[in-house]
Amino acid sequence: MKELDLIRHVRELCPPSGDLETGIGDDAAVIRIGAETVVLTTDMLVEGVHFLPDDPPRDVGWKALAVSVSDVAAMGAKATAAVIAVALRPDVPDDRVRDLLAGIRAAAAAADVPLAGGDTTGTSGPLTITSTVLGRPLPGKRPVLRSGARPGQALLVTGSLGGSLAGRHLRFVPRQAEALTLVERATPGAMIDLSDGLSTDAWHLARESGVTLRIRADRVPVSDAARAADDGRSGLDHALTDGEDFELLFTVSETEAAAIVREGLAGTPVTRIGEVAPGGPAVVLVDADGDEEPLPPRGWEHLR
Amino acid sequence: MKELDLIRHVRELCPPSGDLETGIGDDAAVIRIGAETVVLTTDMLVEGVHFLPDDPPRDVGWKALAVSVSDVAAMGAKATAAVIAVALRPDVPDDRVRDLLAGIRAAAAAADVPLAGGDTTGTSGPLTITSTVLGRPLPGKRPVLRSGARPGQALLVTGSLGGSLAGRHLRFVPRQAEALTLVERATPGAMIDLSDGLSTDAWHLARESGVTLRIRADRVPVSDAARAADDGRSGLDHALTDGEDFELLFTVSETEAAAIVREGLAGTPVTRIGEVAPGGPAVVLVDADGDEEPLPPRGWEHLR
Repeated sequence: MKELDLIRHVRELCPPSGDLETGIGDDAAVIRIGAETVVLTTDMLVEGVHFLPDDPPRDVGWKALAVSVSDVAAMGAKATAAVIAVALRPDVPDDRVRDLLAGIRAAAAAADVPLAGGDTTGTSGPLTITSTVLGRPLPGKRPVLRSGARPGQALLVTGSLGGSLAGRHLRFVPRQAEALTLVERATPGAMIDLSDGLSTDAWHLARESGVTLRIRADRVPVSDAARAADDGRSGLDHALTDGEDFELLFTVSETEAAAIVREGLAGTPVTRIGEVAPGGPAVVLVDADGDEEPLPPRGWEHLR
Repeated sequence: MKELDLIRHVRELCPPSGDLETGIGDDAAVIRIGAETVVLTTDMLVEGVHFLPDDPPRDVGWKALAVSVSDVAAMGAKATAAVIAVALRPDVPDDRVRDLLAGIRAAAAAADVPLAGGDTTGTSGPLTITSTVLGRPLPGKRPVLRSGARPGQALLVTGSLGGSLAGRHLRFVPRQAEALTLVERATPGAMIDLSDGLSTDAWHLARESGVTLRIRADRVPVSDAARAADDGRSGLDHALTDGEDFELLFTVSETEAAAIVREGLAGTPVTRIGEVAPGGPAVVLVDADGDEEPLPPRGWEHLR
């Protein structure tokens, strides 16, 4: 079963109900707790899929927690508590285990989120880490969903995209400060973090919102690592499809967009890469001449 | 690194802080959310460790969620939302994946907890499932910790113990209804679910509470499966050490204990197996003649 089929199957099994406002299909679930609202997300990282056996264990631990903090940030929420589960082969040396834990701890400290619990087990297979992070919107704010993009809004992205496999995918800083600054200063319509690649994640956002996203090819911020990749693919192609950027893609009004692009968010540059149009769901790439072509989801699928 | 060493190491790295009231070392973490309190627990199950390749996938899915619901129940709390992460080899047939998901869904329905989200990934190794459950105490109640046992209280256990490997470890019903009835009717001092075996889990409770638990050997409820085990070990030995019983061990006043033993909890029999004494931490086994011997933790350690 392919990953998207599996997710669709699970989603049909699990409709929102009771205190669950938003379930599978967003960056995190939205759950009512009495008068409060929390968000909850879980991510599983597997050696050989999300990191390599030779990657430094400290970086692996960092990434394991950071991916979930990034999901919480994409809801416009602040990470409140994290729990971690680790499956280890019995022959993993103690110093590698300590480095792994130190990486988890460093990512938790950087995100100001306490490690609240965990589970450890043996395995005969690859190192596997599941991080789960509970978060809260800022006081008086609602979680920002994928479904709130509206025609007329501008489409913005933090940082630059592509080439993350050169190292950034392991050592990225989740855009929590940027997300919290955004919801303090503006009213984002929709937001998602870029884990599968801009072309795929834009499609997620377009589908959940029922809109068309128009992405201007010459505005996509291509990272230095993507430009440096000497593999026959353009920097733009890397930026659209590499994935694991962990930047934020979001929509705001054109007025708010102008201020955000001018000032950045928490020190991070922000680029207006396009706009939300009626119809869809669809994602189109617009070239410098104004010609449009469909941009199919071509991001990194984890079961590949 | 042995599992207990690893847990100790992580615990030292992660002291309670901020909105985290109780962290690593209880069945679930206790987290403040504004005026509300939630509990959060995570459990990772690995093929070949917690279940076998030949176990029915539906039972495996059931168990994966049920173990976390059991942890939440042991806090005297009701499961509110669950998230699940699954790592699958690409060659697992679709019908086995569907059965696994059906088992997860059935356990969620039985516990009245919505599946709020999840993650799926490929792996080159054994099937690995992480379930994380968020729970809430009943209105006006506090979570029941491992640390609240006090001398003079009675020590009680639900159901019967031992022999779970004969099948019950896969198909148990978490004692959520029993736990919620308990906190409605009585004021438990401390509670834990029996995952590692009575001798080990009693020791966890004694250590966190700083007390001595006196367990009467002739009162321990030995399961039929434990009595039927024809392996030269006594039924009592199985009941003390097999683990994966997923029954509740708790302390209440002697007055409350008498009523609970008489009436059971939510239809499940409850046995008074001993009492809480000063000093410790220690766990002692008391025989029919009143002779005492220390009961060392000999439960199932997952990395073994």
